[in-house]
Amino acid sequence: MTAQAGLIAQENTVDTDAVAPALVAVDWGTSSFRAAIVRADGTILRSMSAGKGIAKIPGRDFSQAFRQLLSSWEAELASLPIYLCGMVGSRQGWVETTYQECPAGFEDIARGTTRCKIDGMELRFIPGLHRYDNVAGHDVMRGEETQVIGGMTLGRERIVVTPGTHSKWILTEGQSVRHFRTFMTGDIFAAMRGHTILAHSMDEGSTLASPGEVSFEQGVRQGFRTNALMGELFSVRTRSLFSEPGFHAASYLSGLLIGSEFASGVALYPAATREGVTVIGSAALMPFYVRAAQCLGIDTEVVDGEASVLGCYRLARLNGEAW
Amino acid sequence: MTAQAGLIAQENTVDTDAVAPALVAVDWGTSSFRAAIVRADGTILRSMSAGKGIAKIPGRDFSQAFRQLLSSWEAELASLPIYLCGMVGSRQGWVETTYQECPAGFEDIARGTTRCKIDGMELRFIPGLHRYDNVAGHDVMRGEETQVIGGMTLGRERIVVTPGTHSKWILTEGQSVRHFRTFMTGDIFAAMRGHTILAHSMDEGSTLASPGEVSFEQGVRQGFRTNALMGELFSVRTRSLFSEPGFHAASYLSGLLIGSEFASGVALYPAATREGVTVIGSAALMPFYVRAAQCLGIDTEVVDGEASVLGCYRLARLNGEAW
Repeated sequence: MTAQAGLIAQENTVDTDAVAPALVAVDWGTSSFRAAIVRADGTILRSMSAGKGIAKIPGRDFSQAFRQLLSSWEAELASLPIYLCGMVGSRQGWVETTYQECPAGFEDIARGTTRCKIDGMELRFIPGLHRYDNVAGHDVMRGEETQVIGGMTLGRERIVVTPGTHSKWILTEGQSVRHFRTFMTGDIFAAMRGHTILAHSMDEGSTLASPGEVSFEQGVRQGFRTNALMGELFSVRTRSLFSEPGFHAASYLSGLLIGSEFASGVALYPAATREGVTVIGSAALMPFYVRAAQCLGIDTEVVDGEASVLGCYRLARLNGEAW
Repeated sequence: MTAQAGLIAQENTVDTDAVAPALVAVDWGTSSFRAAIVRADGTILRSMSAGKGIAKIPGRDFSQAFRQLLSSWEAELASLPIYLCGMVGSRQGWVETTYQECPAGFEDIARGTTRCKIDGMELRFIPGLHRYDNVAGHDVMRGEETQVIGGMTLGRERIVVTPGTHSKWILTEGQSVRHFRTFMTGDIFAAMRGHTILAHSMDEGSTLASPGEVSFEQGVRQGFRTNALMGELFSVRTRSLFSEPGFHAASYLSGLLIGSEFASGVALYPAATREGVTVIGSAALMPFYVRAAQCLGIDTEVVDGEASVLGCYRLARLNGEAW
């Protein structure tokens, strides 16, 4: 009787509470802001995004900026735990969190959140990850660990790729991050396209790369084959100079860089990449990584941009806060 | 008697004519201008240099700019053949020359000069070199071929490296250029240092790289070992973030890029580099390449910046004009 009553009570509780708001999830990076009110069952009640990255907050008054950005969520900010991931937890952000050492279990990351009450709000800053070894030196991430936690299918060893200004290749296993490596692909692409001689090859309305261009595929294959960019980049210039038919400089450059990223990623994690990779991230970059993987015969699984919200939710549950 | 008289006459002639001005040699690149009056024996009578590269000539009036730069050489400009190498012979320059196909003998290059009389001056534009193959695609040089001709010791197979915004590794043999490859090392260094996240690691008075820094050597070894820059560049950032003692970001970045250049160059020309490399070029970059080669156990022979003047002279002689 007790057990059955308990079960019924629990079911009722679940039915009712599942749709109640349980936390505010925030992904606040260098260049963008994204927030959601998440229900206890993990579904999203409301969400918003803005171009207000941490680099664009006047006087670094994060508290005021945060309240302004979410001015219509006053009640939730006052009553729910607020999980924040991304560069908001860096030295340049609101509250600096200590990096969690990698390998790190998801529970370690949840326990590592920096809790503080600011201006009446219960803030939980999710720590980034740090790893070090003698060969590769230091590496860090802030925010991607939360995307991984939100986006991955738990279980076997799996590579998660998060395309971006600084792409990460992340080796996960079960409920943990085992290893990762950062590739400055997007950052290098922008610098090469805008600030080297290659800029002269981009001046005919062709500065936007496209994953559908044959040049992109050629770049991917060449970058993957050689992985020695230093001797390849000038060919973006010469192929333009000699007007190869159908040549698209920005797409070829993008392909070269992403192909080289894949070469290094596959060399680093040969066994795991044989199972394919999970790509999490921006809608803008996703098609480039999916196409590159296709060119190279690597299977992909795609997770959309809500992964960091779900990651905040999962971490809150691990902390016993989102019921 | 006749032979002896002839010999005496010849000696007199040599004594007299050897010190007579024989040509004007000009190395006119994108960012700088250098000219010399060369005697018939190959020695330099006068020389000058200026920051007036072809990119800085108002209205592209090269004829007027040239006369202004050398206004005190009026007599020589009117009477001597003028040999010009570098980007002055490109589409953006004074007179566009057709590239000579590589492999190219020095005589081919001499014969390939574009002769024209402009404004009373006898101009000889030295052609650049072009090469193409299915694997590496197109590659080009303008100016370095003249440095090679001026700077190399003739004879066996030899690698000549010309450090710069776009470094070249050039395989020479006897009186010919057999093969070459361009590396965008200097261009990439400037773009990485100034226009990526790495700029944040350079903001403490350490933007100038130095070949004497331990960080430079570490970069060279790491860049040479991996040659996969995409996975290495972010370490410039993280090593700064974690304040490694004695770490110098600009030097490490420079070392990584030059080390990677050496890795590709050695892989491309394994036999020839075993004999060491000849480095021709700017006083500013020379010490970086010499130190990098030392770190990697590669012998170097160094040729100073007058190589292009001597190259003009040798080409003029091959054309029968500098006697």
